[in-house]
Amino acid sequence: MRHFLSLKDFTKEEIIEIINVGLKIKKETKNRIFQPYLKNINLAMIFEKSSTRTRVSFETGINQLGGNGLFLSSKDIQLGRGEPIKDTARVISRMVDLIMIRTFGQDRLEEFASFSKVPVINGLTDKYHPVQLLADYMTMIEFQKENGVCAYVGDGNNMTHSWMILASKLGLELRIATPKGYEPLDDVKEMCEEFAKESGAKLIYTNDPKEAVKDADVVTTDTWVSMGQEEEKEKRIKDFKGYEVNDELMSLAKDDALFLHCLPAYRGYEVSEEVFESHADEIFSEAENRLHAQKGLMVWLMN
Amino acid sequence: MRHFLSLKDFTKEEIIEIINVGLKIKKETKNRIFQPYLKNINLAMIFEKSSTRTRVSFETGINQLGGNGLFLSSKDIQLGRGEPIKDTARVISRMVDLIMIRTFGQDRLEEFASFSKVPVINGLTDKYHPVQLLADYMTMIEFQKENGVCAYVGDGNNMTHSWMILASKLGLELRIATPKGYEPLDDVKEMCEEFAKESGAKLIYTNDPKEAVKDADVVTTDTWVSMGQEEEKEKRIKDFKGYEVNDELMSLAKDDALFLHCLPAYRGYEVSEEVFESHADEIFSEAENRLHAQKGLMVWLMN
Amino acid sequence: MRHFLSLKDFTKEEIIEIINVGLKIKKETKNRIFQPYLKNINLAMIFEKSSTRTRVSFETGINQLGGNGLFLSSKDIQLGRGEPIKDTARVISRMVDLIMIRTFGQDRLEEFASFSKVPVINGLTDKYHPVQLLADYMTMIEFQKENGVCAYVGDGNNMTHSWMILASKLGLELRIATPKGYEPLDDVKEMCEEFAKESGAKLIYTNDPKEAVKDADVVTTDTWVSMGQEEEKEKRIKDFKGYEVNDELMSLAKDDALFLHCLPAYRGYEVSEEVFESHADEIFSEAENRLHAQKGLMVWLMN
Repeated sequence: MRHFLSLKDFTKEEIIEIINVGLKIKKETKNRIFQPYLKNINLAMIFEKSSTRTRVSFETGINQLGGNGLFLSSKDIQLGRGEPIKDTARVISRMVDLIMIRTFGQDRLEEFASFSKVPVINGLTDKYHPVQLLADYMTMIEFQKENGVCAYVGDGNNMTHSWMILASKLGLELRIATPKGYEPLDDVKEMCEEFAKESGAKLIYTNDPKEAVKDADVVTTDTWVSMGQEEEKEKRIKDFKGYEVNDELMSLAKDDALFLHCLPAYRGYEVSEEVFESHADEIFSEAENRLHAQKGLMVWLMN
Repeated sequence: MRHFLSLKDFTKEEIIEIINVGLKIKKETKNRIFQPYLKNINLAMIFEKSSTRTRVSFETGINQLGGNGLFLSSKDIQLGRGEPIKDTARVISRMVDLIMIRTFGQDRLEEFASFSKVPVINGLTDKYHPVQLLADYMTMIEFQKENGVCAYVGDGNNMTHSWMILASKLGLELRIATPKGYEPLDDVKEMCEEFAKESGAKLIYTNDPKEAVKDADVVTTDTWVSMGQEEEKEKRIKDFKGYEVNDELMSLAKDDALFLHCLPAYRGYEVSEEVFESHADEIFSEAENRLHAQKGLMVWLMN
Repeated sequence: MRHFLSLKDFTKEEIIEIINVGLKIKKETKNRIFQPYLKNINLAMIFEKSSTRTRVSFETGINQLGGNGLFLSSKDIQLGRGEPIKDTARVISRMVDLIMIRTFGQDRLEEFASFSKVPVINGLTDKYHPVQLLADYMTMIEFQKENGVCAYVGDGNNMTHSWMILASKLGLELRIATPKGYEPLDDVKEMCEEFAKESGAKLIYTNDPKEAVKDADVVTTDTWVSMGQEEEKEKRIKDFKGYEVNDELMSLAKDDALFLHCLPAYRGYEVSEEVFESHADEIFSEAENRLHAQKGLMVWLMN
């Protein structure tokens, strides 16, 4: 039995394999072929943080695979409140076949997984967002940028960490531009250096967005103000001056560069309306690929 | 692809056809025959306003048709907060096959629909409640009042507007009695005058409930205090004096007149306990018909 | 048509039969055989009080039986607010096939059931928790303690009442140790005396936990502070001094005695960490049996 808590626990081959299962199922879905790969499988979806996108993609995904999703919101379940996480994990994993958790600390997820009898999927933590990266790389494959040079511009957060692991596992070049004080975590940097040695990946850190984006094949960003950081909003907006992905910045990338965004997008902050709408095709393909990549993941984990 | 945002966009023939599909499926359901007309169809149900009746009827309905319902409450999704409606519409409609929205402004619904790749159903707005009218007219057909004279007594609201469109599309006589100041919207009146010209419908507006109910075949009303109007409650109760549908008022209608109510019903306000309970058979048939009429609608839209 | 509001309405033979249906389905489930016993059955799950365990067991259960569950939280539905319980019961029971309710007063549940056209299941009230006892007795059967002497130590609450009815119906010996002032309700005691006369059960009430536990085959307890009693917490902790099921108390029971707990468990209060973890196998089997016992119940009620 395998959990899916971070891409760091998976080899390049496994990551590609999961995405390929997803691509195969996507093709079937587009032809309205729904094979019951996960018939009679019950997926518990635990959301300590609400999220439309993660919710709709997992619930539709398990339905399309012939299984069922149980949506447990923070009103229904609060890990570690009322009863220890280890009890909740032991109870729920006795009743369902697969569990997705969207929570805060990666440690909470890991504690739950260590007591679970069934596979646990990370639906987002403060540290990592691995299912988003499956969707992002699936989109890069579809747009024939699978070996492209990637640029991440913005806040060094869970998306950055996940891009770093993906790139360092897969041997890609990734340039990360963050303002001073917003760099990714040191332990993730060190871990990715090790992965990069083996894969031949190149991870470049800079405080200059232009340097990162120059001749890139894929440009991506994320919100500057994640949930729970609202009180720092004003300071952050000041600190991220010059980090908006707008036409000027995008003009430095390759002419046919992709622009990806995990959404929701805040126009006038991390991305301009013009860049967003002119790249809407790939952005909403990326969003849709959450559905297909996660179907690939669930089928892969249950086999 | 068609949306179902208001009955105004549908012809008489289409309205009848949708209800007939619903009646056919109702008959099958009563015989415990469940044909998977919408197998593998995922319906997202977005509720910005909570509602037991709409929720249970849509979710049971899609289940009985072999599909799946995803319940998204206002805690899970708030249209236009966090991200623009156009983004949410583009994401969700890439993942599911059909969307039902219960919201406030009709404009929010329309904006969402204009960006959706899949059909959108109006589950209630401040202006219209078209799925309720499908159920109401289905009930009139079942009780052989399909050409009956109808009387609406009470507040000029979304139910009134929807009755006006139904009657003016179908060529019925509808008398609307509201207190002064609580008349239906002028733009709906004007629109319905145009429909009535073509269909031969008769729409009569009055401030006298007795005039409206006299010899009617169908009498209906709705709450005087809709969600969000609680602070006006006292004033409204005073203004609606004489508008309670009680035995005295009902005695003016035909002996076998139907009394319909979209529920919840407030006894002692818009309807008396006696009238309600002596007409409980048709009222709860009407409620149940939400289920069957909406199944007809969903099947019709997806074909 | 039968409702399942309390074990008091069922004979010994019926209770055993329901559990046996559950055991048969459990065996199938363990072999990954999922027979669609409740295909096309829609179960409404009304939660006026939130509960992960009840929620996951009922929803997974109905899914495994080929049906569908509709989760209605207190945000979606509040019995008796907005509309009378009798109206809600008439509407919902026209739309679904089976209803589970978790509420406060037993009278609310009974009023709902009296107006429902379909079977209603008690998912927990302030007075009774009959589905938990189905799971508990299923666990006793599996651990070959079906005729064992039982000891309940702690607060005289809905769990106590349910144990009393189970024991007095089935002819078991049950010793109940509560502090003074926390005894079970007199009307339940009187009713159970009548049942005991017929079955030969022995119900013993004491204020001494040691007397209750001595040579028992099954020891059980429940939280001292149920939902809604938080303000009495300090007083209760004082009053329940000496009622913790710890190694010392358990050492008085038979060597192979079971320890059961309906969860959530509060270590250091009604149970010690040592007792809990050394009996984790039976406790989590008991929790899992909620799933299987309730499947047995639902199938039994619908046949």
